Amino acid sequence: MSDVYAARRGLLRDRCAAAGNAAALITRPANVRYLTGASPLGAVLLVGPSEDALFCAGAPTGEADEGRLDEHLRVTVLAGRGGDPAVAAADAASSVRADSLAVEEHHLTVARHRALRSVAPKVRLADLGTAVEQQRLVKDEGEIACLRIAAEIADQALGELLESILVGRTERHLALELERRLVDHGADGPAFPTSVGTGPHSGRSRHRPSDRRVEEGDFLSVCLGANYRGYRCEIGRTFVIGTTPADWQIELYDCVFTAQRAGREALLPGAAYREVDHAARSVLDSAGHAEALAPWTGHGVGLEIDEDPQLAPTAMGKLDACVPVTVEPGVHLPGRGGVRIDDTLVVRPEADGGPELLTITTKELLAL
Amino acid sequence: MSDVYAARRGLLRDRCAAAGNAAALITRPANVRYLTGASPLGAVLLVGPSEDALFCAGAPTGEADEGRLDEHLRVTVLAGRGGDPAVAAADAASSVRADSLAVEEHHLTVARHRALRSVAPKVRLADLGTAVEQQRLVKDEGEIACLRIAAEIADQALGELLESILVGRTERHLALELERRLVDHGADGPAFPTSVGTGPHSGRSRHRPSDRRVEEGDFLSVCLGANYRGYRCEIGRTFVIGTTPADWQIELYDCVFTAQRAGREALLPGAAYREVDHAARSVLDSAGHAEALAPWTGHGVGLEIDEDPQLAPTAMGKLDACVPVTVEPGVHLPGRGGVRIDDTLVVRPEADGGPELLTITTKELLAL
Repeated sequence: MSDVYAARRGLLRDRCAAAGNAAALITRPANVRYLTGASPLGAVLLVGPSEDALFCAGAPTGEADEGRLDEHLRVTVLAGRGGDPAVAAADAASSVRADSLAVEEHHLTVARHRALRSVAPKVRLADLGTAVEQQRLVKDEGEIACLRIAAEIADQALGELLESILVGRTERHLALELERRLVDHGADGPAFPTSVGTGPHSGRSRHRPSDRRVEEGDFLSVCLGANYRGYRCEIGRTFVIGTTPADWQIELYDCVFTAQRAGREALLPGAAYREVDHAARSVLDSAGHAEALAPWTGHGVGLEIDEDPQLAPTAMGKLDACVPVTVEPGVHLPGRGGVRIDDTLVVRPEADGGPELLTITTKELLAL
Repeated sequence: MSDVYAARRGLLRDRCAAAGNAAALITRPANVRYLTGASPLGAVLLVGPSEDALFCAGAPTGEADEGRLDEHLRVTVLAGRGGDPAVAAADAASSVRADSLAVEEHHLTVARHRALRSVAPKVRLADLGTAVEQQRLVKDEGEIACLRIAAEIADQALGELLESILVGRTERHLALELERRLVDHGADGPAFPTSVGTGPHSGRSRHRPSDRRVEEGDFLSVCLGANYRGYRCEIGRTFVIGTTPADWQIELYDCVFTAQRAGREALLPGAAYREVDHAARSVLDSAGHAEALAPWTGHGVGLEIDEDPQLAPTAMGKLDACVPVTVEPGVHLPGRGGVRIDDTLVVRPEADGGPELLTITTKELLAL
């Protein structure tokens, strides 16, 4: 495993050198984890011209303990001494006479940037931009295997919930129960705060569970995901509580389902992000739901639940094979509720069967 | 309630004006919540010379829905249009011809700061520093009431766990069960990820629960807290599993207990932060545990679980009345485990009975 991380750092090193930077300072936790296999709280990574070093605020626990840190990585622990690991890293870069250091300006605060400048006044600070995020876009099969397991876990947790009695239980309790089941099935934790919305709350993106109880006739929207070895998936489904859905519920469900299918079918290597978004969005648009739409209909997933690419009308770029994304159009009608259907898929060439659906729970409109 | 928030914003406005800034842009979520009662995802607050405005990325849900946003606050929702609410706020500041805007340089990233400059080139960006954090230090009785309820909830959840069978259960499951009980008792959620450490993991600060199972003879350290209406408390206890603790366990426990009591007793208005830290630390130092100590022995709590002040050897400043802090010395002996005892207290004058202990679970060494 450790070779994987060393190879990722090697790629970044080459990229830095090509841009004229002797070293790079990685502060964004998901990027540190991608490049080292671990991200102890507050740890930063210095990718140097020949050697790499991890600077930790406290003794690394968890992953690092489990020996997942590779041997090519020097680890410096500031514990007891306190201080900012990024400042210690800049100091180290300065003392090996690195003349320029690329930093993550989209993550580093203005105050921290100033502290780096003052500890290493002779080092020119450049912007690394989202180089590591771009490197993270296309996943290797090891990463996809983790996402596949994460999706399996989420499917299991959701499946069990559907077999239990729902009427009378609060959104908050259903969300907690789902999170417990995720961990029961082997997740390291939820991938993001589980969202459960009932009745007028249904269909709302990222709805925070409240004390509202499930009632007969409600739409029930659930969105959850598992974190498995750092990799995060997402699944969202909407159900009807009771035996016969109302006409408006069937109609709205069909519409969102059609939009979601169109989005899924548009997922092919070479497809523009905005085309995928358009495929889903235009279905809802022409059904008169333009106003109720979120600014995106899907996004990348991986070590973070919300990564590049964004599937949105103004997004620039095209899909590659082995990029995992969500497709999650939804409509929320104020006061009435709504529908959201959300899958995690991996982009695959048509010759390999097209997009690989990771979250396989049925998308039929179930009446529970 | 809305008057509280308007008054807090009034104080900040005065402080800004005194520093020569026409407006302030608040981006740190806990600060936005402190000043408005709500913090929809990504929302930023513009405190202007006469009017204040909240800029949200999406339609505000949760608190804002519940009508807790006050009428003196204009709310602008960017939903559908996308974009950074901070940029929209800077644009608004520019269009009312504010000549200077104080920003939170310790929170704002370098990239975002540049985006603000480019949308509002005529506005001078100044540093607000931690003005809002300083305002948050001393809590009002409404805030302390929330912390008191949060602590009660944590005590209840912990008390129930102690009555259940522990041997054979994993750290991860115990942590999840505690979090479920927190919500059962009315918490909005855990205040921070619950930490459960058994055997060699015990006594470790912020240990991430693993699949290790509780065994006879183990130390078991638990650290948890409830989030109640945004306010977060913390309690940590260490127990022995089985009937008779070993001599080294009794000795280590007594030592940490003595240190923690010394820290608690030092909590008085006017006491220097470093004196409180020293009171606890010196006990452990003289018992030969200097190496095993964290850089701090306590910290403030409130809307965040880790706020100012830090109780640390190099901290500058003195305690005021109505500042809630943790006192949480601990010792971890590599390979053997350790002890951590953690309370949340509110600093009160001696005439009012001295520090108010919020987390009242016993600190006797219980054998479970």
